[in-house]
Amino acid sequence: MMPRKKLLTLESMNQSVRGVVVPILGSLSVRAVEIQREIEEGIHKPFGKITACHLGDNQSMGQRPVTFLRQVAVLCTYPDLLDSPHFPEDAKRRARALMKELDGGSVGSYNLFMYIGKTLPHKIANFIKRRDGGVPCDPRNIIVSSGASQAIVSVLSLVVNNEEALKTGIMVSVPHYTVYVDAIALCEAVKVQYKLEEENGWSVNVTNIRTSLHEARKHCHPKVLCVINPGNPTGHVLSREIMEEVIHLASEENLLLFADEVYQENVFGPGAAFHSFKKVLFEMGPRYSERVQLVSFNSISKGISAECGLRSAYIEFVNIDPSVFEILHSLKSFNEPPVLGALMMDVMLDPPQPGDQSYETYIAEKRDLLNNLAEKAHLTEEILNSAPGFRCNPIHGALYAFPSIQIPETAVRLAQDRGLEPDVFFCHLLLEDTGILLSAGSSFGQVETYHFRLSLLPPIEELKCILEKITEFHGRFMAEYS
Amino acid sequence: MMPRKKLLTLESMNQSVRGVVVPILGSLSVRAVEIQREIEEGIHKPFGKITACHLGDNQSMGQRPVTFLRQVAVLCTYPDLLDSPHFPEDAKRRARALMKELDGGSVGSYNLFMYIGKTLPHKIANFIKRRDGGVPCDPRNIIVSSGASQAIVSVLSLVVNNEEALKTGIMVSVPHYTVYVDAIALCEAVKVQYKLEEENGWSVNVTNIRTSLHEARKHCHPKVLCVINPGNPTGHVLSREIMEEVIHLASEENLLLFADEVYQENVFGPGAAFHSFKKVLFEMGPRYSERVQLVSFNSISKGISAECGLRSAYIEFVNIDPSVFEILHSLKSFNEPPVLGALMMDVMLDPPQPGDQSYETYIAEKRDLLNNLAEKAHLTEEILNSAPGFRCNPIHGALYAFPSIQIPETAVRLAQDRGLEPDVFFCHLLLEDTGILLSAGSSFGQVETYHFRLSLLPPIEELKCILEKITEFHGRFMAEYS
Repeated sequence: MMPRKKLLTLESMNQSVRGVVVPILGSLSVRAVEIQREIEEGIHKPFGKITACHLGDNQSMGQRPVTFLRQVAVLCTYPDLLDSPHFPEDAKRRARALMKELDGGSVGSYNLFMYIGKTLPHKIANFIKRRDGGVPCDPRNIIVSSGASQAIVSVLSLVVNNEEALKTGIMVSVPHYTVYVDAIALCEAVKVQYKLEEENGWSVNVTNIRTSLHEARKHCHPKVLCVINPGNPTGHVLSREIMEEVIHLASEENLLLFADEVYQENVFGPGAAFHSFKKVLFEMGPRYSERVQLVSFNSISKGISAECGLRSAYIEFVNIDPSVFEILHSLKSFNEPPVLGALMMDVMLDPPQPGDQSYETYIAEKRDLLNNLAEKAHLTEEILNSAPGFRCNPIHGALYAFPSIQIPETAVRLAQDRGLEPDVFFCHLLLEDTGILLSAGSSFGQVETYHFRLSLLPPIEELKCILEKITEFHGRFMAEYS
Repeated sequence: MMPRKKLLTLESMNQSVRGVVVPILGSLSVRAVEIQREIEEGIHKPFGKITACHLGDNQSMGQRPVTFLRQVAVLCTYPDLLDSPHFPEDAKRRARALMKELDGGSVGSYNLFMYIGKTLPHKIANFIKRRDGGVPCDPRNIIVSSGASQAIVSVLSLVVNNEEALKTGIMVSVPHYTVYVDAIALCEAVKVQYKLEEENGWSVNVTNIRTSLHEARKHCHPKVLCVINPGNPTGHVLSREIMEEVIHLASEENLLLFADEVYQENVFGPGAAFHSFKKVLFEMGPRYSERVQLVSFNSISKGISAECGLRSAYIEFVNIDPSVFEILHSLKSFNEPPVLGALMMDVMLDPPQPGDQSYETYIAEKRDLLNNLAEKAHLTEEILNSAPGFRCNPIHGALYAFPSIQIPETAVRLAQDRGLEPDVFFCHLLLEDTGILLSAGSSFGQVETYHFRLSLLPPIEELKCILEKITEFHGRFMAEYS
């Protein structure tokens, strides 16, 4: 036999897939895993364990799941428990009702039709209508997805058309949630960035969008404007006025508006309120509501449920011909959502109501979660803004602080010599010294000034300690490199 | 405002995505959903309900889940139950051990690292090693995926390189599991078909592969040879000799061997035994085992667990540089497997052992499942082969019968006039008359002769009744169109 070239190698493989880099396995995370292994192997470190604050992963940081949700989950998974006195009657009622909709009554069936013609899209539509003060919602415009990241890549893969003369442009904010850029790379689209206004609490500025758009039109066909509200990584909650400006711009410039609203329940800033783009669009009248193409989505990985492991989200399409997005059902043959995740989305969109046995517990859990986030946001702003070299905008929503940090010129040059972004360099030093794992601002596309994203999810005492370690370390870092 | 073209329409959207058609929403399934709705609306039909026999969806057809698996699942989901006397100690022990590996001890965390460096790939590798009689398995070569369909599209998306002069060819059998063809379309590869030998129980014939291969090389670069064993839709279990021939051919012709082994536990034919391609490859010696690139996969949607709703599978890569398939971790940022699914894979690969409290129950469940399938396979062969106009090969594995059916010329022409494949035409008439939903053979690429795929999953009495209705209907069909 002749020696032959192997078929699947880095050189021969799909080069567009090869180009996709994932943030969760960035150099910081990889090093954190190594350090944790070193600790377990007995290698001495100045800290006892890795403190991961880089993700919005609530339950990994000790947040307890919503009791009612988990009760319904286990009753559906193991129906023998329907006879157990351990569970409240309303959870049993809900489980029985859900199981009636399952093929063979089982969460172990594919239940493909649950996502299509049957009850789940109707229930999601009812939730949206209630949320939006009665604005109509057609269940036929709802698609269930296995998580928000999947929703992003699915929708973009519908829009990006590489058969056209100009490549499709996708507009994303800077800073942005990293998955957008990965999805754009995967779809072979052109990333068109617009800057958020750090000096204005990270709000959207439509003038910035327009400038980027006109520049981009010289070399691509921008089709989609992505807006994340509440903001990730920024924690900003958009005002209604700005949302109207965004919709007006989308209409005027003929952009499909892609609204990432997964943090819609995580709003806790004084005076901040979440408005959905769908609601604002419809309240602006038919001139907008009948023309602007809007795709918005929501997930049970965030909000009150915070069930990241269940993998469930939904997408609503407005002013888009169903024959377009129904193709997502086809793509879903590669990626059916887990049944339990879909059921739990149903539960979270229609939680216990006043008078229900589980209502008091549910409301207390929800209130504690939001109060807790508000308290931690306030604490974070206070500690960071009173330390030299940090500036933290008010955090009104989502799960993160995204402060700017001062990095002295010597450190910037040193980082560049090592081929690192300066904020990545800082985060690496912090990780080695304290075990604290942050996400560097540059991984969210923020490169002209230096930032990190810190999750607000650790328990408050731990968060305080983390913040103090970060500011203390930064002081030493400044002293060393100034 | 000027009227503008909408951005996302059938005409402007991604045309390669638009081309993907999904079998589960084929015309037969769509019509079945309509009929069910009509029945619910009170419209009279000659039957009371749709009898869906087109899918390998065990629990939708009344199969009970594996008790131990579900016990561990609910203990992990709702740890308060660890105090309940309802659950056996070994299930509790297993749940505690699994929870220790979860971030924050919760199935609600992302648990991203569970899939990468940590224990799950090690446990899968141990299972493979045990299964293959000690052939080594490196956990670094294992990737966890959210289902086998996802595995298929992920791996093909790694291989297909559209930057090369010749398009990438993917070889699939006829008949084949439909998802392959969808995945090939999605990846914009070239489908290269090779015929299975119906006259030889649907076995693989390497001469057929070679003929197709040489023909295909005139217009594309065939890189991957997909083999499904046990066969879907055929129910054939490959002999060791044929597997050696396939491996020899893959080596000689430089093809990456892609072995779909999701039905590896569903083997029940007299004398039939499952051998993994990995094992056979290694037993053929280093001349093969060090050279042939092999990708194989397995899923908990099939086998003894049959948990289609949990969405969990794994892929093993042999002779492939990890830097290639580690990119799947990146793609996974769009598609993390559900945590509970991954945990349950762990449980199924390492079920209760002799001496464990749950062993007897588990073994009885497993035995019943396989005996039941064997009995139903035998019954199906008997009924179909004694009816005129049917021929059914022996069914030794998987979950289906794939008999040939006679369709008279008049019916063939009538079908063609309506733009339907003749077997789709037959299945439509059967559906309208009896409510029985089958998959037409042509949806598996089998077009020169006429077939259908029937699931063996209905309870035996119901299956008998279904088979009698099919043969009785076919008699009337022949009378009408001959």
